Amino acid sequence: MINGHEPPAWDVQTWLNTDVPLSLDDLRGRVVVIHAFQMLCPGCVSHGIPQAKAIQQAFPPSRVQVIGLHTVFEHHESMNETALKAFLYEYRIRFPVGIDRPDPRGNPLPVTMQAWHLEGTPTLIILDAQGRIRLQHFGQLDDLRAGAVIGQLMAESDAGFSTTAP
Amino acid sequence: MINGHEPPAWDVQTWLNTDVPLSLDDLRGRVVVIHAFQMLCPGCVSHGIPQAKAIQQAFPPSRVQVIGLHTVFEHHESMNETALKAFLYEYRIRFPVGIDRPDPRGNPLPVTMQAWHLEGTPTLIILDAQGRIRLQHFGQLDDLRAGAVIGQLMAESDAGFSTTAP
Amino acid sequence: MINGHEPPAWDVQTWLNTDVPLSLDDLRGRVVVIHAFQMLCPGCVSHGIPQAKAIQQAFPPSRVQVIGLHTVFEHHESMNETALKAFLYEYRIRFPVGIDRPDPRGNPLPVTMQAWHLEGTPTLIILDAQGRIRLQHFGQLDDLRAGAVIGQLMAESDAGFSTTAP
Amino acid sequence: MINGHEPPAWDVQTWLNTDVPLSLDDLRGRVVVIHAFQMLCPGCVSHGIPQAKAIQQAFPPSRVQVIGLHTVFEHHESMNETALKAFLYEYRIRFPVGIDRPDPRGNPLPVTMQAWHLEGTPTLIILDAQGRIRLQHFGQLDDLRAGAVIGQLMAESDAGFSTTAP
Repeated sequence: MINGHEPPAWDVQTWLNTDVPLSLDDLRGRVVVIHAFQMLCPGCVSHGIPQAKAIQQAFPPSRVQVIGLHTVFEHHESMNETALKAFLYEYRIRFPVGIDRPDPRGNPLPVTMQAWHLEGTPTLIILDAQGRIRLQHFGQLDDLRAGAVIGQLMAESDAGFSTTAP
Repeated sequence: MINGHEPPAWDVQTWLNTDVPLSLDDLRGRVVVIHAFQMLCPGCVSHGIPQAKAIQQAFPPSRVQVIGLHTVFEHHESMNETALKAFLYEYRIRFPVGIDRPDPRGNPLPVTMQAWHLEGTPTLIILDAQGRIRLQHFGQLDDLRAGAVIGQLMAESDAGFSTTAP
Repeated sequence: MINGHEPPAWDVQTWLNTDVPLSLDDLRGRVVVIHAFQMLCPGCVSHGIPQAKAIQQAFPPSRVQVIGLHTVFEHHESMNETALKAFLYEYRIRFPVGIDRPDPRGNPLPVTMQAWHLEGTPTLIILDAQGRIRLQHFGQLDDLRAGAVIGQLMAESDAGFSTTAP
Repeated sequence: MINGHEPPAWDVQTWLNTDVPLSLDDLRGRVVVIHAFQMLCPGCVSHGIPQAKAIQQAFPPSRVQVIGLHTVFEHHESMNETALKAFLYEYRIRFPVGIDRPDPRGNPLPVTMQAWHLEGTPTLIILDAQGRIRLQHFGQLDDLRAGAVIGQLMAESDAGFSTTAP
């Protein structure tokens, strides 16, 4: 993804932890933090998921929306919807999680993962209140830097404009 | 289990990470450290599995044998053999893991878990070189105490006798 | 301190890790992160100091200036300048550290600590680019929240105005 | 020190946290865990001291005696008895701590540190119930291995003999 541009809409097969499907358009006005993960990815379980939960607790939902995106690109058989539900229950994950749609043409990468050019899991993606990608980080990003981006985007939103995006 | 007594034989449906099935009899002469776990149990993933891997690295295999016992008592559909294989691969678990046999009568607890009166996962079980249960701990046991039991049982084995078992 | 107001100037007896004394005026234009600490305070050593070092590494010095303030209010005899120098050396602390001036009237609290109404150590204080106190937190503040304040203040500085201060 | 031999007596200038001076002879019958440390040594503060406190909590004092040995070989002026007392108070260290005697001939290393050929701090030394050195480790030793040595030596003590010492 080119930073500063709106991503294409996600293509989510099923939403969990939410009664209504989420769309990027509906989230305008809030900073959106997306954790792309796989439930059997050790770095996601040890770092990305706890960070996403901490972000959800640290910031008011009216300002920052945390979303999980389950981008299964390996072990598809074992990371199905039933297994993911068990995982969300056991790890007490309360934020909405979308299941990225499997590629109908057989590419092991699901379709949103392809469209967004994600390199793997965990990937942290942060959108500003205008829906533009401002951070996309594959691997572990420390809390200081993640927090700084969120704080910056909240300040921009308060000011009604962007300081650094094109 | 009553400490100091030999447990009944485990009833393992399938062994992973080993070419031959393991039996308690064959392990006589070595301290045996068994981690009873479930792949979707957070305390197992964050504490029990890393501890089992550390024990495997800290002590020579000729003295201490680490074994995983996958005792699935919930989310059976999602913690099947295929999923467990993916889990072992992703978490780089190299020690032998036995899958506890599902109860043919429909009890959600698998049969070894029942026979050994395990309370849940993670449970750490340590057998002395004579095959007797000397520690059975449900929950997290710190490394100091786990290490002390292993050191004690190795010393007893060196001396050819038990200091504290009946 | 009332958030949003400029604090009185600090009264530093001696500066370490800097050739020239620092003043709040000279730091205008940069976000200023001050860690008020004592070298024998466990929470400072385990949390505050590592966080200050991480902030120094995460953000460019042209945008964020990290400063230590050694506010000794107990064990004065043991936390003198010589001891502090040894501490900074052993803990590889490279950011400027000011020694808060002891109270000439015998109050165990040093004078800046009094003037700023600090409750103890560690205390994290963050000033915006206009020199106003925007955060003052006694105890441990997690990296996400600390990072968010820094990011917010950098964004405000970029925009040349404040979004939330009076 | 050659493992398996009794060390020369320590030469302690002052004992803290104990009403009576301790001697190796008086400790016979117990496993003795000695943490040689300096109060301004980062590895001691982050690892060695917490480990010593955890050992004190994990094992009964009738079986395992934890002792700190303050072996100051640098920054002598700042790590004096007054400063050490403040350190013990702030870090809530309750086990006996002996201050190794400064070398009257001016060697920066204190005399017990010289006599025991310690390489630096932290050093973990474990003596068996017969007063012989069975482990001497410079740097950080993980809890599993430290626990295993303690467990082994307790088992030997129970059996009234040594399994591996000469």
